[in-house]
Amino acid sequence: MITASICTIGDEILIGQITDTNSSLIAKALNNKGIRVNLMISTGDNEPDIKKTLTKCVGDSDIVIITGGLGPTKDDITKKVLAEMSGSKKYVKNVQQMELNTVYFKERGIKMLDINIRQAYVPETCTVIANKIGTAPIMQFSVKKDDRQKIVFSMPGVPFETEHALPEVIKAIESFFKTENIFHKTICTIGIPESELAKTIEDWETGLPENIHLAYLPDAMLGVRLRMSIYGVDKITGEKELEEQSRKLYSLIRPSIYGEGDENPAGAVGKILMSENKTLCVAESCTGGMICSVFTENPGSSKYFYGGIICYDISVKTDILKVNKEVVEKYGVVSRQCAEAMATEVKNLLGTDYSISITGFAGPDGGTKENPVGTAWIAVCGKKGVISQRLFFRGTRNINRKRFTSHAIDLLRRNI
Amino acid sequence: MITASICTIGDEILIGQITDTNSSLIAKALNNKGIRVNLMISTGDNEPDIKKTLTKCVGDSDIVIITGGLGPTKDDITKKVLAEMSGSKKYVKNVQQMELNTVYFKERGIKMLDINIRQAYVPETCTVIANKIGTAPIMQFSVKKDDRQKIVFSMPGVPFETEHALPEVIKAIESFFKTENIFHKTICTIGIPESELAKTIEDWETGLPENIHLAYLPDAMLGVRLRMSIYGVDKITGEKELEEQSRKLYSLIRPSIYGEGDENPAGAVGKILMSENKTLCVAESCTGGMICSVFTENPGSSKYFYGGIICYDISVKTDILKVNKEVVEKYGVVSRQCAEAMATEVKNLLGTDYSISITGFAGPDGGTKENPVGTAWIAVCGKKGVISQRLFFRGTRNINRKRFTSHAIDLLRRNI
Repeated sequence: MITASICTIGDEILIGQITDTNSSLIAKALNNKGIRVNLMISTGDNEPDIKKTLTKCVGDSDIVIITGGLGPTKDDITKKVLAEMSGSKKYVKNVQQMELNTVYFKERGIKMLDINIRQAYVPETCTVIANKIGTAPIMQFSVKKDDRQKIVFSMPGVPFETEHALPEVIKAIESFFKTENIFHKTICTIGIPESELAKTIEDWETGLPENIHLAYLPDAMLGVRLRMSIYGVDKITGEKELEEQSRKLYSLIRPSIYGEGDENPAGAVGKILMSENKTLCVAESCTGGMICSVFTENPGSSKYFYGGIICYDISVKTDILKVNKEVVEKYGVVSRQCAEAMATEVKNLLGTDYSISITGFAGPDGGTKENPVGTAWIAVCGKKGVISQRLFFRGTRNINRKRFTSHAIDLLRRNI
Repeated sequence: MITASICTIGDEILIGQITDTNSSLIAKALNNKGIRVNLMISTGDNEPDIKKTLTKCVGDSDIVIITGGLGPTKDDITKKVLAEMSGSKKYVKNVQQMELNTVYFKERGIKMLDINIRQAYVPETCTVIANKIGTAPIMQFSVKKDDRQKIVFSMPGVPFETEHALPEVIKAIESFFKTENIFHKTICTIGIPESELAKTIEDWETGLPENIHLAYLPDAMLGVRLRMSIYGVDKITGEKELEEQSRKLYSLIRPSIYGEGDENPAGAVGKILMSENKTLCVAESCTGGMICSVFTENPGSSKYFYGGIICYDISVKTDILKVNKEVVEKYGVVSRQCAEAMATEVKNLLGTDYSISITGFAGPDGGTKENPVGTAWIAVCGKKGVISQRLFFRGTRNINRKRFTSHAIDLLRRNI
């Protein structure tokens, strides 16, 4: 299998000022072509570290993709290291990039400085892929190591320039190496803890063919996603095999599956509502708007999502939502009775087909002996009447809010 | 200077399915203590790669922080490698983690499986920092390499567990190494574009002493934060110097500053409201709950935040909020008039001192010629009556929603 290293260069990454998003972008593109990324590494803007890191990458992998260390204000150390590594004696002007840069500066009415002109000069040993939306060209080097021919790409670090140039880099890789096939399928589950999920599908997992790899991807908002990857087969066989395995998976845990691929719980519920031409509203206390917000993150949510009442203060619960004051006094705001009343009342008030409600203690303060911090009551009201459930998590305030949110949304999915 | 490697383990990182956010989080915390991160590396869930990577990290740095590779499911090999590297002959039960896990499962009414019990067993060679919000303990190993004592921490990979445990890991590092002095001060601005901000403070920035470094940290939600770092001085001198520089900064851009340090716009507004004993409510259309959600992210927000009406559908604007139908028909839902009516009505309905409203087009679809996608009208109602403002951004749906949210909140700050 062809392997790749991804190397990001920049002090701003190592001091934690920015999160490196280039690496995952590049990794995904390589992975889709059956190239195995066996190393991701970030290094600082200094010659010894860059040299050491690139030497390691070339030693470890067939392909090395570098981003960063090419801007006009940096010392162009990356270019210098690559020139040395590839045995380049001089820099040559890349005519295409020079023309692009000249136009770029002219259009913006900015004078082109020496440091800008230098960007179009590259080591004689490289092939250039022009950068059409920035000024630093993409350079491709061929390096021999341990009797194997390796290729090294140097790309700019600005994320949208990386993204823009990536397809051309992938094309260049494909014309150099015969890449292996790899196909993925992700099944998204929620409402089942990771360990219970693992236990439930243990036999199936053990029985998976050797060329299928399974990964568990847990997330407070997205639940536990199961990703199957199949290697070394053609597209038709691969997709057929993944389809068959996911059929088996569905038969084991169907109620916990809310979708596939990049879906999110709210988007999945939205799809069902849209297909049935139904509408939804929400009454939120402890999540304070998060449930509404995740529904409306999905484009097109206006087709089914009417809105909600954020009843953080008790007065909003009783005066706007018209939850009976006696319910609040007798059972407390964090109670089955209050959650059910909230769901019923908000549905009546906004006139939708379904509603979701939640009331709880997100923390860090509050809570009672019976309902400590991390407890919430959620309810769903629909054609079958009102259904409620108690949740309990031990997380920080914001993690609790996220889990409350995804579980409240999931209660609706399980009861539509 | 003390150096650190950050190592993230997980196939999901190498195939690009998730972006590694743990590394930047950890790097920032180490940087704050004057520890230089000289390597960030990601490796797959397999024994040879983990072994090779950890050996490199221990060779390159004084401190190694590992995240990932510890979950209850099968693909977790990190513990085994660390046991070998540290010469552990057996696993021992960590009583504190076992108790926490037992309570955790009991509270959630889930049966504890063998794989869950195994999580509380650790190599005899490590010290444990209990994981209070998850089931995998944090392990600390001491390893001798090239005559230097190195420390290795293994943390769970789930980002919120990493975040939660990080302060304790930093404390353990501080009790092991004498860290260098470095002091930071962050001034948070909003409502002023980065380039305008840079121009306004240009002279001040040029005049900064050599041992003060300035960084611009832009964020859709938090505005542009300016972080000053001072090196090589004692605490009193450092803090005094930073205080003096920030006084100068305030005199240049005071109206754009909403806070310092880790503050967020909603939290800053909340502080003012609390100090004046005032209350707030919100009416949201295009942001669909995000404004309410960011206020309630802040603990203690129940003291001033009453709630809100999420009026995504027009019917909620006219029937619940009682925005005059003629206003909607004459000016459209995305208009100054509608935003002002929303702010006025929600304030009346919920009976608070202040209100915020927003109506706009977040995209990708919708918009009109006059008000294209990226346009929003925001309004604030308070003792001075109602004030409104038009916003326009060219971003994706979710970036627009974030910018709308922070600017709407900031309109209130500027008018309290």
